Amino acid sequence: MSARSPLPAAGDHVERVELAGHIIDSLLLPKVLDLITAAGGSFRIEKISIGHDRTDPSYALIEVQASTQERLQQILADIADHGASPVDSKEARLVAADFAGAFPEAFYSTTNQRTEVRIGGRWIELQNQEMDCGVLVDPAAGTAHCQAMTDVKVGEQYVVGHAGVRIHPEAREMHPQGFEFMNSPVSTEKPKGVAIRQVALELIRTRREGGKALLVGGPAIVHTGSVEHLSTLIRKGYIQRLFAGNALATHDIEQALFGTSLGVRLDCGDIVEAGHEHHLRAINRIRRRGGIRQAVETGELKSGIMYECVKNNVDFLLAGSIRDDGPLPEVITDTLVAQAQMRQRIRDVTFCLMVATTLHSIAVGNLLPAWVKVVCVDINPSTVIKLADRGSFQTVGLVTDVEPFFRALVSDVERLERS
Amino acid sequence: MSARSPLPAAGDHVERVELAGHIIDSLLLPKVLDLITAAGGSFRIEKISIGHDRTDPSYALIEVQASTQERLQQILADIADHGASPVDSKEARLVAADFAGAFPEAFYSTTNQRTEVRIGGRWIELQNQEMDCGVLVDPAAGTAHCQAMTDVKVGEQYVVGHAGVRIHPEAREMHPQGFEFMNSPVSTEKPKGVAIRQVALELIRTRREGGKALLVGGPAIVHTGSVEHLSTLIRKGYIQRLFAGNALATHDIEQALFGTSLGVRLDCGDIVEAGHEHHLRAINRIRRRGGIRQAVETGELKSGIMYECVKNNVDFLLAGSIRDDGPLPEVITDTLVAQAQMRQRIRDVTFCLMVATTLHSIAVGNLLPAWVKVVCVDINPSTVIKLADRGSFQTVGLVTDVEPFFRALVSDVERLERS
Amino acid sequence: MSARSPLPAAGDHVERVELAGHIIDSLLLPKVLDLITAAGGSFRIEKISIGHDRTDPSYALIEVQASTQERLQQILADIADHGASPVDSKEARLVAADFAGAFPEAFYSTTNQRTEVRIGGRWIELQNQEMDCGVLVDPAAGTAHCQAMTDVKVGEQYVVGHAGVRIHPEAREMHPQGFEFMNSPVSTEKPKGVAIRQVALELIRTRREGGKALLVGGPAIVHTGSVEHLSTLIRKGYIQRLFAGNALATHDIEQALFGTSLGVRLDCGDIVEAGHEHHLRAINRIRRRGGIRQAVETGELKSGIMYECVKNNVDFLLAGSIRDDGPLPEVITDTLVAQAQMRQRIRDVTFCLMVATTLHSIAVGNLLPAWVKVVCVDINPSTVIKLADRGSFQTVGLVTDVEPFFRALVSDVERLERS
Amino acid sequence: MSARSPLPAAGDHVERVELAGHIIDSLLLPKVLDLITAAGGSFRIEKISIGHDRTDPSYALIEVQASTQERLQQILADIADHGASPVDSKEARLVAADFAGAFPEAFYSTTNQRTEVRIGGRWIELQNQEMDCGVLVDPAAGTAHCQAMTDVKVGEQYVVGHAGVRIHPEAREMHPQGFEFMNSPVSTEKPKGVAIRQVALELIRTRREGGKALLVGGPAIVHTGSVEHLSTLIRKGYIQRLFAGNALATHDIEQALFGTSLGVRLDCGDIVEAGHEHHLRAINRIRRRGGIRQAVETGELKSGIMYECVKNNVDFLLAGSIRDDGPLPEVITDTLVAQAQMRQRIRDVTFCLMVATTLHSIAVGNLLPAWVKVVCVDINPSTVIKLADRGSFQTVGLVTDVEPFFRALVSDVERLERS
Repeated sequence: MSARSPLPAAGDHVERVELAGHIIDSLLLPKVLDLITAAGGSFRIEKISIGHDRTDPSYALIEVQASTQERLQQILADIADHGASPVDSKEARLVAADFAGAFPEAFYSTTNQRTEVRIGGRWIELQNQEMDCGVLVDPAAGTAHCQAMTDVKVGEQYVVGHAGVRIHPEAREMHPQGFEFMNSPVSTEKPKGVAIRQVALELIRTRREGGKALLVGGPAIVHTGSVEHLSTLIRKGYIQRLFAGNALATHDIEQALFGTSLGVRLDCGDIVEAGHEHHLRAINRIRRRGGIRQAVETGELKSGIMYECVKNNVDFLLAGSIRDDGPLPEVITDTLVAQAQMRQRIRDVTFCLMVATTLHSIAVGNLLPAWVKVVCVDINPSTVIKLADRGSFQTVGLVTDVEPFFRALVSDVERLERS
Repeated sequence: MSARSPLPAAGDHVERVELAGHIIDSLLLPKVLDLITAAGGSFRIEKISIGHDRTDPSYALIEVQASTQERLQQILADIADHGASPVDSKEARLVAADFAGAFPEAFYSTTNQRTEVRIGGRWIELQNQEMDCGVLVDPAAGTAHCQAMTDVKVGEQYVVGHAGVRIHPEAREMHPQGFEFMNSPVSTEKPKGVAIRQVALELIRTRREGGKALLVGGPAIVHTGSVEHLSTLIRKGYIQRLFAGNALATHDIEQALFGTSLGVRLDCGDIVEAGHEHHLRAINRIRRRGGIRQAVETGELKSGIMYECVKNNVDFLLAGSIRDDGPLPEVITDTLVAQAQMRQRIRDVTFCLMVATTLHSIAVGNLLPAWVKVVCVDINPSTVIKLADRGSFQTVGLVTDVEPFFRALVSDVERLERS
Repeated sequence: MSARSPLPAAGDHVERVELAGHIIDSLLLPKVLDLITAAGGSFRIEKISIGHDRTDPSYALIEVQASTQERLQQILADIADHGASPVDSKEARLVAADFAGAFPEAFYSTTNQRTEVRIGGRWIELQNQEMDCGVLVDPAAGTAHCQAMTDVKVGEQYVVGHAGVRIHPEAREMHPQGFEFMNSPVSTEKPKGVAIRQVALELIRTRREGGKALLVGGPAIVHTGSVEHLSTLIRKGYIQRLFAGNALATHDIEQALFGTSLGVRLDCGDIVEAGHEHHLRAINRIRRRGGIRQAVETGELKSGIMYECVKNNVDFLLAGSIRDDGPLPEVITDTLVAQAQMRQRIRDVTFCLMVATTLHSIAVGNLLPAWVKVVCVDINPSTVIKLADRGSFQTVGLVTDVEPFFRALVSDVERLERS
Repeated sequence: MSARSPLPAAGDHVERVELAGHIIDSLLLPKVLDLITAAGGSFRIEKISIGHDRTDPSYALIEVQASTQERLQQILADIADHGASPVDSKEARLVAADFAGAFPEAFYSTTNQRTEVRIGGRWIELQNQEMDCGVLVDPAAGTAHCQAMTDVKVGEQYVVGHAGVRIHPEAREMHPQGFEFMNSPVSTEKPKGVAIRQVALELIRTRREGGKALLVGGPAIVHTGSVEHLSTLIRKGYIQRLFAGNALATHDIEQALFGTSLGVRLDCGDIVEAGHEHHLRAINRIRRRGGIRQAVETGELKSGIMYECVKNNVDFLLAGSIRDDGPLPEVITDTLVAQAQMRQRIRDVTFCLMVATTLHSIAVGNLLPAWVKVVCVDINPSTVIKLADRGSFQTVGLVTDVEPFFRALVSDVERLERS
């Protein structure tokens, strides 16, 4: 191999790192080399082997050099996020939390990629992988998991610095195939039929394999007239979880009780004068019954998304926001409690469909590990862009209209069921 | 009636105007009164009768006052566009064109509303009503019609000033019903199913009554995978005219010949490497055959929108733009020639569906009279907003995705046919 | 007056209503007449007088007829929201709450317009006007105010039905002048300089008159590099309140501590690798200090929006959401508590500027009465559209980019200060 | 090197290609390897050397294998666009055009990258590099250049197939620096100040070095109130070319003559009733004078963008479209003639600023070679996305508002001039 930088000057600080997997296809090698030089370091590729096709792994052994120890450490931290880890493994450094609800100062901040920490000479995989957390280690048990800042207790052991941490980034295929084909997710000029068929296949596979499909939805599902479509999917057993806010549930119930959504009649599009009160009357009615479940049991609520969730044992979670009227009794008004609940209930989710909600989509996107497949549907490209800008790289965006999307999805699911 | 301004001072300039029709529902009366005072004039309502329901006409007789003759004339010109015309009718003033391709200086500039000019003591309705034109009068024949600036010939007689011109604005219903329900056309959170059903009904009515439905379309119809849907509508006889550009026809033919649109395979969404050449090869092939019609006749072009137009005698017009590759032989590259052709071929159009093209939609919107129903479909709200900002008030906007729109439209049309 | 419907049949139900104010300019009369006929009623205009210019009030006395008593009551309820109230005033009907946290079934649901209820033969103006509330009456004290559903206590007296309630809608001028000129608020093709100058004038007037200007802001204020602009406005005393979420405060502090916002360096636009951790480290640091105020006092936090708020005694409120990391200690994580706090702290607000946040803008829009001037600035037209769709009619929308907006605003304010 | 596929079976078709330059940083190597396997071929890397930093070139020698000769040729064509060319150079194959206005069937279709063809044993660089053209060769003179389809004459020699053609793709830096920092160009949440400063520096450098800066602009420049800003840039000598349509020139002249743009007064934002006629009167006036230049010379046109172009000898080109009123005498109404003119007048352009026009931006983007720096400014992200989707990869997108952009740009230019 001839790729090398000038000979290291005396006193140069050096570390050998290795990189394995789809390092060329997934652009990891170019990214790592670029980061090294961008941060003022240099490199020498000691060994490189490139898989002969897209499914074969490649491997690179790289010597990283920098003029100071600080710079070297910064470079190693930078490239660690992209899967480059030192050949000579060090133990993760642990520091006890000195403060409830805050990490020790130099805490290691997690990504949503599969991560291992080195404890007692062994690599241990993190449990409950989630980004923007700390790494709580139980050295005795030899376990480690992601912990949110707010849950830190004094005395717990947290990883600080990047030593002893390694990341295995998800391969990102370059070649457009199946779910990966939406390279430019915000384009509105791509054929959507294919993408919708893929979502249908994913729902069918999830149900067949006993996975958990999570729907994260906003009130436009109701406003656009998609209640019956989504109800069908729930009845057929394609949705196992529903995360939403007060608005989706309220307008769904408004429609079930009054036939309107935000005062618009959904059968003919007419605006019902004074219909803007309907959503408030719907909330009031449910509050007087004690909750959605009770209203279903008493026979007062007879149709709609929430009705189907109750009837079909779909686990639903309604998280509060400051724009809520009411809210409905089931709404969790404390956002930290809601987050903790969401965290618990995404653990076994294998497929996530986000529809027409920026707030809930980003909240869930923050909690999901990188390997859970996510499809985000919105007519407004900015929602999809925001998700991608915040690091939810696994998200496939679909810029399309909600009602026709659901209509086509139900039709595809029913056709595929028969075939 | 007690509504009146202070008594006119000596020397005040006064004119009595009348306003008839749905002057309250259509907001004409408030608009006219507002314009008068905004321009520094004052008014006295001499007589007002208000229809007891929405279908009964109302009537107002208003005395307009201003301190100078110039101001009065300006006010009369302003309110004339909203249907207020002087009780004491004057003859329209005619001036001969002194310059080819330009109007006399003070030319009357038309709106797209039904307009009459007073010639020889009689009110004559304008032919070929179109906005932003001059009014060419043939006093001998007692006829008048709208003429584009570029077509002016020396010696022709044109109306100057506002005297002797009166306008009958289309009633704009306030109550949301049927086509009128999309008050805020840019909202993406409204039920679309109703609107699509209305379009289906409109197409069916047009075919049954022997009207002409014009489709104005952009290439996203092809990119989104809607060719088969639109082909179905053409085969069934629901589209009588097609206005488009080089791009729609090119990508339609690209798909027919190569199965791709801008290099994207429409059956599976894969991007075909080097597929960006396909559109160029498609154009080249058709140019070598002499035209689209010839390619259909020789059996080279076997499917798609353009194929169906040829086979089903749908009159198509392809207008050129500076971003065209090729272009196809049928494309009219001179924009003035294209405009003249469009002008001829919209005369008998009774319903217009604009899909996914800003350029062609605005061009056609400029040519259509106010009473032709227009539905504009685009996933990007800005297209609909631009149309409305430019005075195409009769446009109903539908912010939705192209392929699901066409899929639902075909399904609605087929269902309604059976019922 | 000749406007009348056919003679009422025997047994017809009739009520006389009156409508006063700018009923033509504000489109109230057309709206009311339309509502009556749309709901199957008919009307006879008994008296009408129209003000001779835009500042003179008009008056109409209308007889409303319907075939059943139920229909008549529905019509009266519909038109009441637009200011039409029965000539023969009835007492408001009161019912005691039988359930904590929910209204009696037929509760009157408030609008954000100035409202009076008739208690003990007198019209009493509602206090704390807010939409989507109930009307809590203290008959002994002769007072009434808006109450949120969640605050209802058993035994409190609430208004039910529409009798004895009258509304005085804000006049909506038709003529484009000053703040009213943005008729189509979503257009991006309007001159913005004028609108920004109006906001500057509004801020100056508010400060001079001792009013309260509330800024409701999202994190894009920081991301786009506007911290210094907003800091200037705060230092100069133009902002008296700040409502925001965890994100704005976090990224503001991230920038003050690390020079980045979401990992993007704001001085040169470079993306700092591993900079995505900075916002988390910023939160952690502040949590370790106990809060933002403490970090300012210890000298750790030396610049930025939050720093200026602390230093200049600007009252700030940070409301939690489910997408928050951390959050910062000052964030109110319970959304009901946050709403209650917001409700308290908007009482004396006289001008509200909303920038780059949909969630907080709609939340505040729900709380403000119709007569508080609101300007909503966002580069995404959908935020402004959503606000308008939800009934915040007093909102002037400005679709523009955040940083240039603030840059121009500061420049205008400074120029106007000198003149 | 250990990267290799299984031994080629007897009868396998093989070709050795080489790839040089920034093949890792620019993602060329991953892309090429991926294309080979995606198309059903396999590869063996015979030699690889990787530059030790971002400015050093790398090199790879790759053996490509496929089961049929057709597949091998398709793979070679695919990877040629990314710079991989056969080690054993072949002559380009030439075929004489048999048809005016169309290429021979298997014509080589150009990219916008620097390209060479092998003629008479020598590599000749293409002149007038432009995408979607054919390669016209003059074997006698040893020259080759890009030719548009419409200009083909019978008997001319064109390259067919991919043999004897090689491409040198522009390096696309991964590291965010200077102009490259807008990785996700559609984000509205990035700091814009830096990007605007870069545009200012580019304009200053262009003027200093005697380059040519081309402004491609739409009418929103006028509607948003940016005429004075752009006029300043022209007067100072920062714009050498202007490409626009009838609308920009018309509304600019409308403003100069009447103070309005589409009937909106730009000083105060008021809508002038009947002001919609102003643009038509402006066109009529100029047509009566014979043209813009004549109107400047007679003193009738005294300010604005077009006035400054005439006064400062800025070469302007107005291209027609089907939505034009009038048009102005200078407008080139034939789109093929306009394209030919644009092609001529971009030859020496070194920097291109596109503002608020989709049509003209895409038209110019199609004509420019890949190495000309382009900045595209629009408040609507879809324009920038469309440009990127169509292969104008060199474009830096800036989603921001037009007037504040120009205001900041002028301010930056003036500040940088002084420093």
